[in-house]
Amino acid sequence: MTYQEARIDFERLSRLGMIEAVWGEHKTSDQIVAILRSFKAEGQAALVTRVDRNKADIVLEAIDFSGVQFHSEARCLTLGSPYEKNSTFGEVIVLSGGTSDLPVAAEAGLALRWHGIKTELILDVGVAYLQRLLSQLERLKAAKVLIACAGMEGSLPTVLAGLVAQPVIGVPISVGYGVSAGGRAALEGMLSSCSPGLVVVNIDNGYGAAMAALRILQLE
Amino acid sequence: MTYQEARIDFERLSRLGMIEAVWGEHKTSDQIVAILRSFKAEGQAALVTRVDRNKADIVLEAIDFSGVQFHSEARCLTLGSPYEKNSTFGEVIVLSGGTSDLPVAAEAGLALRWHGIKTELILDVGVAYLQRLLSQLERLKAAKVLIACAGMEGSLPTVLAGLVAQPVIGVPISVGYGVSAGGRAALEGMLSSCSPGLVVVNIDNGYGAAMAALRILQLE
Amino acid sequence: MTYQEARIDFERLSRLGMIEAVWGEHKTSDQIVAILRSFKAEGQAALVTRVDRNKADIVLEAIDFSGVQFHSEARCLTLGSPYEKNSTFGEVIVLSGGTSDLPVAAEAGLALRWHGIKTELILDVGVAYLQRLLSQLERLKAAKVLIACAGMEGSLPTVLAGLVAQPVIGVPISVGYGVSAGGRAALEGMLSSCSPGLVVVNIDNGYGAAMAALRILQLE
Amino acid sequence: MTYQEARIDFERLSRLGMIEAVWGEHKTSDQIVAILRSFKAEGQAALVTRVDRNKADIVLEAIDFSGVQFHSEARCLTLGSPYEKNSTFGEVIVLSGGTSDLPVAAEAGLALRWHGIKTELILDVGVAYLQRLLSQLERLKAAKVLIACAGMEGSLPTVLAGLVAQPVIGVPISVGYGVSAGGRAALEGMLSSCSPGLVVVNIDNGYGAAMAALRILQLE
Amino acid sequence: MTYQEARIDFERLSRLGMIEAVWGEHKTSDQIVAILRSFKAEGQAALVTRVDRNKADIVLEAIDFSGVQFHSEARCLTLGSPYEKNSTFGEVIVLSGGTSDLPVAAEAGLALRWHGIKTELILDVGVAYLQRLLSQLERLKAAKVLIACAGMEGSLPTVLAGLVAQPVIGVPISVGYGVSAGGRAALEGMLSSCSPGLVVVNIDNGYGAAMAALRILQLE
Amino acid sequence: MTYQEARIDFERLSRLGMIEAVWGEHKTSDQIVAILRSFKAEGQAALVTRVDRNKADIVLEAIDFSGVQFHSEARCLTLGSPYEKNSTFGEVIVLSGGTSDLPVAAEAGLALRWHGIKTELILDVGVAYLQRLLSQLERLKAAKVLIACAGMEGSLPTVLAGLVAQPVIGVPISVGYGVSAGGRAALEGMLSSCSPGLVVVNIDNGYGAAMAALRILQLE
Amino acid sequence: MTYQEARIDFERLSRLGMIEAVWGEHKTSDQIVAILRSFKAEGQAALVTRVDRNKADIVLEAIDFSGVQFHSEARCLTLGSPYEKNSTFGEVIVLSGGTSDLPVAAEAGLALRWHGIKTELILDVGVAYLQRLLSQLERLKAAKVLIACAGMEGSLPTVLAGLVAQPVIGVPISVGYGVSAGGRAALEGMLSSCSPGLVVVNIDNGYGAAMAALRILQLE
Amino acid sequence: MTYQEARIDFERLSRLGMIEAVWGEHKTSDQIVAILRSFKAEGQAALVTRVDRNKADIVLEAIDFSGVQFHSEARCLTLGSPYEKNSTFGEVIVLSGGTSDLPVAAEAGLALRWHGIKTELILDVGVAYLQRLLSQLERLKAAKVLIACAGMEGSLPTVLAGLVAQPVIGVPISVGYGVSAGGRAALEGMLSSCSPGLVVVNIDNGYGAAMAALRILQLE
Repeated sequence: MTYQEARIDFERLSRLGMIEAVWGEHKTSDQIVAILRSFKAEGQAALVTRVDRNKADIVLEAIDFSGVQFHSEARCLTLGSPYEKNSTFGEVIVLSGGTSDLPVAAEAGLALRWHGIKTELILDVGVAYLQRLLSQLERLKAAKVLIACAGMEGSLPTVLAGLVAQPVIGVPISVGYGVSAGGRAALEGMLSSCSPGLVVVNIDNGYGAAMAALRILQLE
Repeated sequence: MTYQEARIDFERLSRLGMIEAVWGEHKTSDQIVAILRSFKAEGQAALVTRVDRNKADIVLEAIDFSGVQFHSEARCLTLGSPYEKNSTFGEVIVLSGGTSDLPVAAEAGLALRWHGIKTELILDVGVAYLQRLLSQLERLKAAKVLIACAGMEGSLPTVLAGLVAQPVIGVPISVGYGVSAGGRAALEGMLSSCSPGLVVVNIDNGYGAAMAALRILQLE
Repeated sequence: MTYQEARIDFERLSRLGMIEAVWGEHKTSDQIVAILRSFKAEGQAALVTRVDRNKADIVLEAIDFSGVQFHSEARCLTLGSPYEKNSTFGEVIVLSGGTSDLPVAAEAGLALRWHGIKTELILDVGVAYLQRLLSQLERLKAAKVLIACAGMEGSLPTVLAGLVAQPVIGVPISVGYGVSAGGRAALEGMLSSCSPGLVVVNIDNGYGAAMAALRILQLE
Repeated sequence: MTYQEARIDFERLSRLGMIEAVWGEHKTSDQIVAILRSFKAEGQAALVTRVDRNKADIVLEAIDFSGVQFHSEARCLTLGSPYEKNSTFGEVIVLSGGTSDLPVAAEAGLALRWHGIKTELILDVGVAYLQRLLSQLERLKAAKVLIACAGMEGSLPTVLAGLVAQPVIGVPISVGYGVSAGGRAALEGMLSSCSPGLVVVNIDNGYGAAMAALRILQLE
Repeated sequence: MTYQEARIDFERLSRLGMIEAVWGEHKTSDQIVAILRSFKAEGQAALVTRVDRNKADIVLEAIDFSGVQFHSEARCLTLGSPYEKNSTFGEVIVLSGGTSDLPVAAEAGLALRWHGIKTELILDVGVAYLQRLLSQLERLKAAKVLIACAGMEGSLPTVLAGLVAQPVIGVPISVGYGVSAGGRAALEGMLSSCSPGLVVVNIDNGYGAAMAALRILQLE
Repeated sequence: MTYQEARIDFERLSRLGMIEAVWGEHKTSDQIVAILRSFKAEGQAALVTRVDRNKADIVLEAIDFSGVQFHSEARCLTLGSPYEKNSTFGEVIVLSGGTSDLPVAAEAGLALRWHGIKTELILDVGVAYLQRLLSQLERLKAAKVLIACAGMEGSLPTVLAGLVAQPVIGVPISVGYGVSAGGRAALEGMLSSCSPGLVVVNIDNGYGAAMAALRILQLE
Repeated sequence: MTYQEARIDFERLSRLGMIEAVWGEHKTSDQIVAILRSFKAEGQAALVTRVDRNKADIVLEAIDFSGVQFHSEARCLTLGSPYEKNSTFGEVIVLSGGTSDLPVAAEAGLALRWHGIKTELILDVGVAYLQRLLSQLERLKAAKVLIACAGMEGSLPTVLAGLVAQPVIGVPISVGYGVSAGGRAALEGMLSSCSPGLVVVNIDNGYGAAMAALRILQLE
Repeated sequence: MTYQEARIDFERLSRLGMIEAVWGEHKTSDQIVAILRSFKAEGQAALVTRVDRNKADIVLEAIDFSGVQFHSEARCLTLGSPYEKNSTFGEVIVLSGGTSDLPVAAEAGLALRWHGIKTELILDVGVAYLQRLLSQLERLKAAKVLIACAGMEGSLPTVLAGLVAQPVIGVPISVGYGVSAGGRAALEGMLSSCSPGLVVVNIDNGYGAAMAALRILQLE
């Protein structure tokens, strides 16, 4: 039984304007090394998401070529260099309800910066103390797209989308316990939102939110 | 097979300080008439919740004694008169996120007023437009207990409990569609709330929220 | 117990650039008439979604002022006239997997056209016969934003977002039976999508998808 | 990508009368140390909940200032001293159905005592042997608020709220297996309770139940 | 496409000691008539469960042979006569938490009496007012098997099985609203019960509980 | 907003060997008439599934061309004539656990016969009385493919697939109540089956099971 | 905060005829040792269920009194000796569908033998190969009560209860993967069973099934 | 309490044409060794699925007879040799959406080759980049049966079954996170598929898909 592993989508860049990203969580370190080697051979950049430190260390140890780095906060490996900042694209702000949302917010931020997008993270603006969010309102209005990460009951994107007119992308976070464990309550809260025009991605999908923002920013 | 229907808890008043309430939704009109007759015979007041207009009309038609009224907005039948307003108990404010929450908010209000509690309803203060809630803040701080009804993503009680120090009782409402249909998303959002000390009752349980407020107000 | 009904958000237009929309499904015809009268008095346009023909007929009968119309395919009432077509905003295409998705697709289309956005509907391009979608590809690339409605397994937005670089907004539809009844399978399929940057709104939320597109188009 | 971590709500005390509490479960020990240092700098007390012994040991090792303690039974870290007992506030009794509920009951007790509230724990009064609860009834009536923790089928708060007139706060516990694993059955049992006026918090949320009790006790 | 309808299990009586029962809910009146005719031809008794009054009237109208009756409280049709009371079998008591549980309790009672079992119904002994149950305790100890029906949080069988040593069969009831709608909360509460040796049948399955009792009583 | 309705897959026949089928449940009678007219114009046969008698009557009334019939047991409309019996294809037997499964079993049978496949229905061979199934075993071994429909706990396909070597396709049926309502329990039972090589289709999807059998029969 | 741990139900024996059993899974080894010491002091026997080998070793190490044993197959600790075999009670047979069900079947068997009940285990009689079960039928008819353990789709109790007239208690087992992981599919299959009079206990609750059998056997 | 372990179905081969397979996940290494020894004694081949490397190493260490191998990619143990390739049976192609699906695809492939079926694996043809699948179309049409493995939203089998006329067996894979974790979204997507005649097996059930293919191939 022979087979060819990892039929990589080398044309994603020309088709979608996106660097190829590989979901690292259920892949072995051997599979990740082989995939990175293919990209290196093609001269392409790459992003590997959801890699824990242990697996990253094994990959970095096994890699025999240059250009691979681990970003521990965002739990991602990258191959190659980020694109030049493209100032015509406008800025994205990534907000989070609490400090525990950091890994997902950082994944979104890294994916955007790797595509040359100016990005800022504003943590800990959850709605249990509204003043934290309201005090940032003018700053937020300067961004082109807002990505709002929130676990627990996930109200932050709802409140935000009622206050600003730009695109708001909600990212439910799998922190919480009891009914909020796993991020379902946050996800359903965002989907049920009474604020018009809020859109949502899968739980913890910081990369997906970043690519959604990129699709918007790439509209000339 | 003989049996004795409706073993009524005539001692609830002395034990819990609450008028006996009967859940009308799954009872036939015959059962409701028989129960009201028993209360009348005991000289007690009673509240029958979740009665639609059709069933109420049949009950009112069949009743051959005085003192029964239907409250259409709250979908409740009452027997007897409300208690005297008891000003030492303090006031309860019932808020709702949207107009569709009215029947449940009205059920809570009716149950409280029937126990002599001063009550006000403030509708349509949902968080999609925060200013509506913030403009009421001083008014809200005058109440002893706040009951906050909300469907969809159910953020109102969370935002409220972050702003005021009093007891806040969240009532999820079964309005909505898709993931918010049935009120589960609102319920789980309230239970997951990042605001400390928010308590919750069953979906659409306006009566239960009222009795929880009464337990608090009765503390001397 | 006195209260003031329907605390309407008359400032939504200036804050978010959106005509106020009212969710009609759980409101009585009396409540809808009262709300429309308030908007009329303010000289504002309005959109009432999820109104079935029966309720619409009662509302239209009860209305004693001009400017209200029922759009039966989209199940919406409107007050006032649509905005002038704004050609700088670019076009939105609304796709659907099957004929049964029409009401939701039509709701999205109506909401966009009411805000002056050029919109086209392309029905029946489900992935069970790929050629139907592939033959439209060049046409689709001309649009600024794509809204893809799909019930059953909901694959259309996933396949589409792998083919085009623009923003794609998935709308799960509550048609189907067995495991796809209610639209959950379609929703979860879209959220789980392996295509990067697909965003999703609540099941059947055509209006929400339209407002998300509007947020994008309003970015100058 | 720079950001400012942990935008702490230093005004919670003046706004809500509550010491700031930090949810420790999904935070790294580094994040917890940084947060505690901020509170220390502000001269405020703090509570960190859901910290296991391993993480606590690492935090205590890393802390270079005084006043931090680990409470192993309640799985909490505290900074600063508890408030003086405030005898005007009345007493809270925390009950539990079984010995396995101890960590959550202890978290509730610790949070209350840290706010100066007199608190007693009564374990193992589950309804499988009613006499255990009934024998405590007079003792229970002396408390101002009752917090009832129960896993499995979660009947304790229902039975209790049918026996006493005070506020009863149900806390579902995530012990159990099969259908009761995770605490959902207990939660839904409490929400469905046939006893009027029982209120509920999230599964295992001992801290939340304590803050709900505090909101009630702070009513003058 | 020819086929033979309703391959009836005429040997159930000799194999299991049970009269054949037919689940009437999803059958047409034509199907029910045909099935009853087959039993009549075989000289066997039969029970048809979950038949509403409308369908029963159509069946009774269409039947052209004697011995069929409708039992409206239990929503069952019977063919033939009940067995002689068999005093060696001992008695079954069917309890219910509330009046709304009557149809299911009556179905259980009818099925038992049709097999010659002495049966009593005791309604309205829900645990929100424990005294109602405790006052019946001596009476209950005289029965051989206890069937306890309860909706909402379904605590009655748990409390009962902690008080008596006989077999207790819990029947969850689909009354309730919000999280208790459909009877899932009651079912899961009974399965999670902390009382040892409580057994459970499907929601609303009064007939099944009766047959479980019969299996026990038939042990000589 | 103009659009072209019902982009029909006229090439399905040449591509997959299947007559085009239209899912009628969420379509209006107007939509169904228009679709049938398109097929008539193309000279193709068609099958419309899940049409209740009321909708069928309206369609038949509105149709102004020949060749449309309603099959009430199978709840289907057909256009055109069934294919000639193709004896090289072998026979399919459709089994069902109970009489209530008839509509789905009949839908499968109709779809097969319309493609020229010899088909027999054997109802009421549920596993509560094994002898009914075992007595048919030799008959079953003569078929090329077996389709087994079952509601409730859905054991029939599991037991069957342990007894015979041919392909067995399980069809869960949405009859039942309590935990088996809607067919989920039957579906999950079939998917969990301990019998090797049992395959499953969606709940009530008789048409899908028939097309799966057709794919098998069309080999070589 | 002082409290008294483990309010043990020493009267369970006289009230229910059952040795006190303690659920060991969520208790610390310290708690288990303390509880066993209390029983020892009272001169009572005890059973601790769901104890893994590691925890058992720590307990056995810490115990400073005689009479405690670990039963590794059943994952239980016992204190004291089993009761004398009571031949008037009749025999219980515990069946299982597969070898993986052994720990739960063994827990049921141990609990019964500790109460003096004659018990036999018959493993691996799952319905994927019916002959295994049918060949045991005469042996099974000799037992007074049958306990049938099954994971995956859980058909064994259904098939069994259609073949024999005695009480059958179904125990769903949490083995399986995909939709059968955790035992829900088996549980719902048993509750949905088309065999009359099958009763069910919680997933993996071997002890509960044993106590249900004991309640039946104790009927004189 | 004596019992006979592992009542093995040695007749499966003659009855179903399948080598006996044992589900290894919840069995101890001792149980697996004992089962393999029984097969060896009978001179039969065997397959043990879902065995991780650790358990496999312990089994291989303990085995004192020849013919047992571990297949690490497929996580299976085998006893004996594969059957001769049977060229009359035709070929099976196993496809997968992504590299992470490899273990399940390999399990299917191994099970087929062990029965003498020619099999090829084609990985990484997910629908996010359609061209990968479309470029293989001619190759796919040469196979007799297609097994399509996919996690996340699971669209691959739907798209495939719309393109080819052969039997397509969908295998949902438990890779993913958020709503796709555990494979439920993929499973429900496949069951809801708009492509006619797609059949499905349990999540990760590569072995089951292989046996379903075998049932088809064995039809002469």
